[in-house]
Amino acid sequence: MTNKIKTGEIICVGTELLLGQIINTNAAWLAKALSDLGVSSYYQTVVGDNRGRLLDCLEQASKRSDLIVLTGGLGPTQDDITMSVAAEFCGQPLMMHEPSRSKIAGYFKKMGRLQVTDNNWKQAMFPRDATVMENNNGTAPGARLRYESNHKTTHLVLLPGPPSEMRPMFSESVKPWLTEMTATRLRHLFVRMIGIGESSAETQLLDLIEQQQNPTLAPYASEGEVVFRITQSLKDVSDPDLTQDVLNKVKARLGKYIYEVGERKMPEVVKDMLEEKGMTISFAESCTAGLAAATLAQYPGASHVLTGGLVAYDNQVKNQILGVDQAILDREGAVSEACAVAMATGCRDVFKTDFSVSITGIAGPEGGTPEKPVGTVWLAAASVKGTSVRKLQMGGNRERIRRVSVLNAFDLIRQQILLID
Amino acid sequence: MTNKIKTGEIICVGTELLLGQIINTNAAWLAKALSDLGVSSYYQTVVGDNRGRLLDCLEQASKRSDLIVLTGGLGPTQDDITMSVAAEFCGQPLMMHEPSRSKIAGYFKKMGRLQVTDNNWKQAMFPRDATVMENNNGTAPGARLRYESNHKTTHLVLLPGPPSEMRPMFSESVKPWLTEMTATRLRHLFVRMIGIGESSAETQLLDLIEQQQNPTLAPYASEGEVVFRITQSLKDVSDPDLTQDVLNKVKARLGKYIYEVGERKMPEVVKDMLEEKGMTISFAESCTAGLAAATLAQYPGASHVLTGGLVAYDNQVKNQILGVDQAILDREGAVSEACAVAMATGCRDVFKTDFSVSITGIAGPEGGTPEKPVGTVWLAAASVKGTSVRKLQMGGNRERIRRVSVLNAFDLIRQQILLID
Repeated sequence: MTNKIKTGEIICVGTELLLGQIINTNAAWLAKALSDLGVSSYYQTVVGDNRGRLLDCLEQASKRSDLIVLTGGLGPTQDDITMSVAAEFCGQPLMMHEPSRSKIAGYFKKMGRLQVTDNNWKQAMFPRDATVMENNNGTAPGARLRYESNHKTTHLVLLPGPPSEMRPMFSESVKPWLTEMTATRLRHLFVRMIGIGESSAETQLLDLIEQQQNPTLAPYASEGEVVFRITQSLKDVSDPDLTQDVLNKVKARLGKYIYEVGERKMPEVVKDMLEEKGMTISFAESCTAGLAAATLAQYPGASHVLTGGLVAYDNQVKNQILGVDQAILDREGAVSEACAVAMATGCRDVFKTDFSVSITGIAGPEGGTPEKPVGTVWLAAASVKGTSVRKLQMGGNRERIRRVSVLNAFDLIRQQILLID
Repeated sequence: MTNKIKTGEIICVGTELLLGQIINTNAAWLAKALSDLGVSSYYQTVVGDNRGRLLDCLEQASKRSDLIVLTGGLGPTQDDITMSVAAEFCGQPLMMHEPSRSKIAGYFKKMGRLQVTDNNWKQAMFPRDATVMENNNGTAPGARLRYESNHKTTHLVLLPGPPSEMRPMFSESVKPWLTEMTATRLRHLFVRMIGIGESSAETQLLDLIEQQQNPTLAPYASEGEVVFRITQSLKDVSDPDLTQDVLNKVKARLGKYIYEVGERKMPEVVKDMLEEKGMTISFAESCTAGLAAATLAQYPGASHVLTGGLVAYDNQVKNQILGVDQAILDREGAVSEACAVAMATGCRDVFKTDFSVSITGIAGPEGGTPEKPVGTVWLAAASVKGTSVRKLQMGGNRERIRRVSVLNAFDLIRQQILLID
């Protein structure tokens, strides 16, 4: 086949997106799906329910991409104009699609609504040459159609806006078709590091970043850690895996900072390590006030490893429940190595867990001193192997200081787990 | 002044967005911010870190909008080209900005990193006529500059990509400037409600939503609560305030659901109520695992009211530390009214606080039963006035269930606080 799809772009239609009233999760989901299928995406656009502007966007997109995926604006209301604009753009009349019409009639009959308003039949009208895609999770079907111009074919795919309808329709009706239509596939590998700055890591990998053609190596932004992406472009799924060779080069230089090759972030890595060993963890948190425990509990199955935690915000709680010596609090203060250690060991005793980790620091914006400025955080991790500590000195606002503290607390506990054979 | 800003569009730069590796929350946040300032947005674009394509996007956007807000691509790596592309687009050379250079040097000194790699200085280079905007939460400053073409001025605003840097920079440096530059001034009033569904609230306010011209009344999306925005368009800042009249009409119909007229969300409202009364709170959390306490601790000054909390994930912790009767756990289970009440009262005893709140439920995706499906959550709040409970039955995924549980826990405690004179 000659008209292989190499490039694709996403147009999300909806005034509520332009007003910022909903976050555009469709774009990211579709972008990932296209990328996984080897379709290169160079643009995403959000435009309102407006005929002229949507036509402009289609015109532009059709010049630069082989595929345009549109979401939103397929519903029954007056605002929903995506299908009719696509028909106009492709120079095709809208025609009644009998299977869709009778499905809508059946739906309303089932709902006990005898009077079907005119605008509902709108959802059975499609451009003359469109391939209609059934919606098994809502009333608005999708459609695929071709736009021919200047010896170039652009494929239009129209999907409903609600993610619960869009995602299954893509998987059921678009993906199998697109798999046949694409020219290349991609193989990705994510290399996640902690304990090194992004620019320093990039400097040490610069020749690989600049010289690698296939696979490519590129940095990828992530808070408090450093991530690189290795991407191999495949002609065929059976092509040999070239990503491992690049990975080995990265490992040779920065291996000691790598905590994960894959999709998992630090807290999930720790959860899985604990689960594998059948071991448990507890948290003693001051400035993060439960954020570390709550982060671990994001992951289904956290209950296998997370016993509990103490939010020890007030010093009395540190003293009376965790057993931190009052002399430590008086002499060295709550933000100190001694207090962090006492919190971690006390926490391990209270919850009777294999591991425990403590976080105590000054998140700001108030409360810093010249010796202990805002952003000073002490961490301690305790296990049968003893106690380890880490001091952080961070910039940034209260939220960032708390999040990066949590990330480092998980890294500290990870290093403790590694001590257990 | 003649060149008032009426229209604006958002361009988010980053290959990781095009690959769907991160969700574009910046676009929604900025769209909301522009809308609040009375700037009309008709387009949002995502483009990769690519000189030619970014130039194309700037060219297009400058033809149709008075303001272009760009995010991303200001970092130290080779990929980060937004600043230099903007300079090229405006026909200005990049020049070293001394205050930024010395700030970067200071930052690295403070972080104890003695070696500053060359690419870090890139973040001190700006287009000749740019107004530099300080970054108080990271190393990459932002910039504002003007593009003049065909008797039209377009303002470019360049912001860093990480939301924790972008948002404060917008609020500190863009908003005050933009407020002066916009053609219309708006006066907003946010009416926040809990305990009523959005469509039910909308139905009861439909005539006001449809008939109001100035001020307008419109729903404003927010998770787990219902928010309406009253917006008055002003000719002059001294125009009389017409929003109160609309507010009174809304209050007359839905007053009992309103918990705040203003910017504060539920947890902050609770924090302020407690602070006013000089009272303290503690948390006993099972499925939310510290998220409620951590949410309260987001706010500076939380230490005045937050004593501590217990993450009681494991039933043994509920029993041994909070004193929940083993018979309750055996007979009714951890997700029950009796357990929630025992957790809340036990928590109040352990932490010796004025108020305490407990959360116990099934966040899923596993673990539901026909009697207690995923999304079943019991809340209890305890104070000197006694104990109150609330049962939630929610749809949605694990994260949503946990977040909405926390929101409702704060509402329950708010109602307890209202009982104290």
